[in-house]
Amino acid sequence: MRRIKIKVSYDGTDFSGWQVQPGLPTVQGLLQDVLTQIEGSSVHVTGSGRTDAGVHALAQVASFDLHNPIPPDNLRRAINRLLPPEIRIVQVEDATPDFHARYHASAKTYEYRIWRGEVCPPFLRRYVHHHPYPLDIERMRDLAPRIEGTHDFSAFAASDERDTLGRSKVRTIFCSRILIEDEQLIYLVRGSGFLKHMVRNIVGTLLEAGKGNLDLEGLLACLQPEYPAKAGPTVPARGLFLISVEYETSAPAEERGQSAEPADA
Amino acid sequence: MRRIKIKVSYDGTDFSGWQVQPGLPTVQGLLQDVLTQIEGSSVHVTGSGRTDAGVHALAQVASFDLHNPIPPDNLRRAINRLLPPEIRIVQVEDATPDFHARYHASAKTYEYRIWRGEVCPPFLRRYVHHHPYPLDIERMRDLAPRIEGTHDFSAFAASDERDTLGRSKVRTIFCSRILIEDEQLIYLVRGSGFLKHMVRNIVGTLLEAGKGNLDLEGLLACLQPEYPAKAGPTVPARGLFLISVEYETSAPAEERGQSAEPADA
Repeated sequence: MRRIKIKVSYDGTDFSGWQVQPGLPTVQGLLQDVLTQIEGSSVHVTGSGRTDAGVHALAQVASFDLHNPIPPDNLRRAINRLLPPEIRIVQVEDATPDFHARYHASAKTYEYRIWRGEVCPPFLRRYVHHHPYPLDIERMRDLAPRIEGTHDFSAFAASDERDTLGRSKVRTIFCSRILIEDEQLIYLVRGSGFLKHMVRNIVGTLLEAGKGNLDLEGLLACLQPEYPAKAGPTVPARGLFLISVEYETSAPAEERGQSAEPADA
Repeated sequence: MRRIKIKVSYDGTDFSGWQVQPGLPTVQGLLQDVLTQIEGSSVHVTGSGRTDAGVHALAQVASFDLHNPIPPDNLRRAINRLLPPEIRIVQVEDATPDFHARYHASAKTYEYRIWRGEVCPPFLRRYVHHHPYPLDIERMRDLAPRIEGTHDFSAFAASDERDTLGRSKVRTIFCSRILIEDEQLIYLVRGSGFLKHMVRNIVGTLLEAGKGNLDLEGLLACLQPEYPAKAGPTVPARGLFLISVEYETSAPAEERGQSAEPADA
């Protein structure tokens, strides 16, 4: 038995998210179907975390076990031949037997893309949130890095997760920036892990700041553990990309800060 | 009554081409439906030419007549509100009463995009032809400009159009080039007009050259009016973009070389 690590890119538009759901098209479900076909017996795929319906990935990481001795590059080609073109395996490698795509992830990077021009190009409509209204970009640029550091992100969790007790909502954000690329505003965030809807709620909150509805004081209040409400609205899934998942390769799992929770952005 | 000129961008993936067809989603059909709704009576839209099912456009040009006195920018916004996001009006302007989007077009530019890398990114799959096999790029680069000039392009017409008599298959190509952009090979062509499938058949022919199946002599033979066969295979529609349509604004229509035929690439 070998443990295999893969990097997966997908256009999330037509999927009901990563996690397998009976009767619905999901990325994990399709991967498991294809691998089960290659292996000849049931294969379970573990992702670094779930992504919601409509969220894209440049390089989601997943792991699974296989008896089949097929070399990594051939396995990549075999999987890609059987998958629809909306999902592509970009890398396959043999991992150490204890490698776990979810528990061993040390950081993740997401990007959220907003199209600011009045007319959204048809070729980008699946991959950006169209927001052709005035924004105070300087304020958004100033506030974005204030989220960096270790905070209780309860106010940025999905409504159905905010009140769950016992699970820490504390996460560490290493980098939180607004970038401008022609008519696109890009929010780039790298952190130890993310709560369900967290990135989309941070972007919704920064957009509120851009519209003049929130200032630094208001943002800092949202980062207090006792903040009683949801920080900002949840922006649409289509603008969100999981860019990369990082793993510390040297230290054993026990010594690392494990993000033991299935993270959902 | 005013004559209006519009520039239209569309993702052709889910359309049965430009030209209206009963019961099928077409760009012309949707535009006419929306304009008829705005005008309150039937509006006919004339395109610069048809594009086939699956072909995209950055700036197709079309014209139509309207009684409604709505200012051009407001009209653009009104149409875009009613159209699906796959079709966007990027420009609306009042034209001279004799402006005709098809008869007065003096040149068109197309691009064909080929993804050469082994794995085609899911986000590009609708907009490129995936060809991850070896190609003699230098030969393709050398041969592409040999198509420039005025030739009988019968060998590059669609099979069902090649044998139609009485209609000239002579066209003038002003520019025909192969460009490389990272893992993409781009064929750029600008000409007076194009026969049905002509760009896709030129690309198919250049790919044959890239595979070593055709040399300069073979290509030049295809440009002879008496060439008895089809030059090369027709590559898939998804890689083809109508980039721009040019109009001579100074001279009256009678003095211009009219491309009186509905051109189809």
